[in-house]
Amino acid sequence: MTTPLDLARTLLRCPSVTPEEGGALRALGEALAAGGFAVEHVTFSAPGTPDVANLYARYGTASPCLVLAGHTDVVPPGEAEAWSHDPFGGEVADGLLYGRGAVDMKGAIAAMAAAALAFTQKEPGFAGSIAFLITGDEEGPAVNGTVKLLEWAKAKGERFDHCLLGEPTNPDALGDMIKIGRRGSLTGRLTVHGTQGHVAYPHLADNPIPHLLRLLRALLETPLDRGTPRFDPSNLEVLTVDVGNGATNVIPASARAAFNVRFNDVWTPATLRGEIERRLDEAAGGARYDMEFLPTNAAAFVTEPGPFVELVAEAVAGETGRRPALSTTGGTSDARFIKDYCPVIEFGLVGQTMHQVDERVPVTDLDRLAAIYRRVLDRYFAADSRVAGG
Amino acid sequence: MTTPLDLARTLLRCPSVTPEEGGALRALGEALAAGGFAVEHVTFSAPGTPDVANLYARYGTASPCLVLAGHTDVVPPGEAEAWSHDPFGGEVADGLLYGRGAVDMKGAIAAMAAAALAFTQKEPGFAGSIAFLITGDEEGPAVNGTVKLLEWAKAKGERFDHCLLGEPTNPDALGDMIKIGRRGSLTGRLTVHGTQGHVAYPHLADNPIPHLLRLLRALLETPLDRGTPRFDPSNLEVLTVDVGNGATNVIPASARAAFNVRFNDVWTPATLRGEIERRLDEAAGGARYDMEFLPTNAAAFVTEPGPFVELVAEAVAGETGRRPALSTTGGTSDARFIKDYCPVIEFGLVGQTMHQVDERVPVTDLDRLAAIYRRVLDRYFAADSRVAGG
Repeated sequence: MTTPLDLARTLLRCPSVTPEEGGALRALGEALAAGGFAVEHVTFSAPGTPDVANLYARYGTASPCLVLAGHTDVVPPGEAEAWSHDPFGGEVADGLLYGRGAVDMKGAIAAMAAAALAFTQKEPGFAGSIAFLITGDEEGPAVNGTVKLLEWAKAKGERFDHCLLGEPTNPDALGDMIKIGRRGSLTGRLTVHGTQGHVAYPHLADNPIPHLLRLLRALLETPLDRGTPRFDPSNLEVLTVDVGNGATNVIPASARAAFNVRFNDVWTPATLRGEIERRLDEAAGGARYDMEFLPTNAAAFVTEPGPFVELVAEAVAGETGRRPALSTTGGTSDARFIKDYCPVIEFGLVGQTMHQVDERVPVTDLDRLAAIYRRVLDRYFAADSRVAGG
Repeated sequence: MTTPLDLARTLLRCPSVTPEEGGALRALGEALAAGGFAVEHVTFSAPGTPDVANLYARYGTASPCLVLAGHTDVVPPGEAEAWSHDPFGGEVADGLLYGRGAVDMKGAIAAMAAAALAFTQKEPGFAGSIAFLITGDEEGPAVNGTVKLLEWAKAKGERFDHCLLGEPTNPDALGDMIKIGRRGSLTGRLTVHGTQGHVAYPHLADNPIPHLLRLLRALLETPLDRGTPRFDPSNLEVLTVDVGNGATNVIPASARAAFNVRFNDVWTPATLRGEIERRLDEAAGGARYDMEFLPTNAAAFVTEPGPFVELVAEAVAGETGRRPALSTTGGTSDARFIKDYCPVIEFGLVGQTMHQVDERVPVTDLDRLAAIYRRVLDRYFAADSRVAGG
């Protein structure tokens, strides 16, 4: 019997910093294959990006198919000396499992795999199938990961009914929060062109900085929206402003800024770009500027509460005694890709130490998360399930 | 007889890019010494700055003493290939003398020296004295130049009654403009401290950029003043804004800006700093920031019109047929140092090509400028002069 802790320690010892596979997908694949899953390792490439290994595994061929999704890649540990335990040692101390990826999200993958293996062992002929969709490119450019794995699976005829993604969703304690959607993300780069000159002769120059300040103010001073029933208000943050003029007597020729918007379902990327362009146009006052938007595939989405959300919420409440909030807060995740294939929600560990030194998870949380996932599987494939049939 | 053109060509052939003496002060000193001037070469040093050669020359010891001031150092020629004539060749073509420093201001120094040598040859026993105060550090940090030369001269008992500085003062044609003062200059560096964070969690961060935009707006949106009878309104230019955040998902920790104010006689550097600090304080809204002012010795000053200004204006009008405007516009000059020793005004060549490729001066302008300076000397030391006596 594979325990969540055993599998988590195995995964944590694999140095799978994006884009390195580090042995993590291999180890997971072996554990799933031993439990009867058909496991496939698929590597994707694209010009200018590193090759990335991904894993697809499925038990059963029948409908409904519940997808358990996640990633084994991790962000770098930073200064290893700052850690109290080897970031790739999988060490346990005082009931806490330490390591880069402990909560984001090798711990959750271990819990998913342990739950699925236990379920399939107990119900080998259950009516349906379970798929694992695991990428090694979530913390990186996300080009050769989940997007392509989904296309690849679709091309070979795989059909999914629901997906549970194991990102760390709980702010403080296991059971706090299920993510039922995510805001979109749009990044823009604004360049204002002026005319260089001497500060003593401003009438012969055109300082681009006041223009840029005015344009940024037009983006910032009126809120984009007031939020929606499922989402917080959209939020624009100016990321940087750069001129790079070191002279104290020169008016610079140009000024640049970049901003990022985390937006709700009031907007699509296209309508949001339109609103930003409208505001800039209105505030331009003759200033010459270029507005460039970075390509984005992060639109806002929500999986409306219904039988599937309710099933997962009940599994969480049954195990933790807490009714999880249904939230759309936080950053983006691979759910933004999966939502085009089937309804997707997210539940995992407590995120507090993710991306930090001494990332760690209580062993009891690993066990309880596995128990929650097991409850989900039990209910999802139960003869009287309203979800799978619906 | 030394002609302005001969001396200008000699000076232009000396590659005296700041802080190099390049032979220019030596050549000028030899010309003046040959005409009976007592010439002294003085080199000043300071930690962290290059040594700089300066020249002091005097003809006569009696009062009144009229100072002719200027600099032989020049800004670099930039790409020499872009010039149609060698920037250090002193070449004449189509009546134009080409070279770095032709108008700023070796041409004017040649005109001054030619005028003074002709005057002292004709009136060897005139009642008064003429001093040359020539630095090699006007285009550089201005630390080892005019400031120290004035202190040095004062320490050895030299007393000055009036000064005419030969900077290029005419916007379009010889006779356009006398500068009777200069605005002051103050540079400030503003740094706002925020709290770094992830763009998806702005409530856990404090983006310094909106604070900086608000503070800069407080400096820009209300004019500092409306100008004074002798000065244009003070003007603040934001020189640069720099954050240097290359990540699209990170709210930066701090943001910096620099600005320069060209200010009139409404302000002293101290009162202007106070006004800027007051505005920032009022707009701060709890933002944490540091405001650092660069040391400045460039206060606004004016030499009020009177007999000396009138004498120079009449000399200009007599030679060019044009009544020069009395102006305080433009950048700073070494006049800001000289004004603490005696009344100082400025008149020189047409500035259009200064600091540019193919800097050049019509040979006729050189001759006419020498004639104007000669008229100044004639009138200044005339028996019925109202200036020297008053």
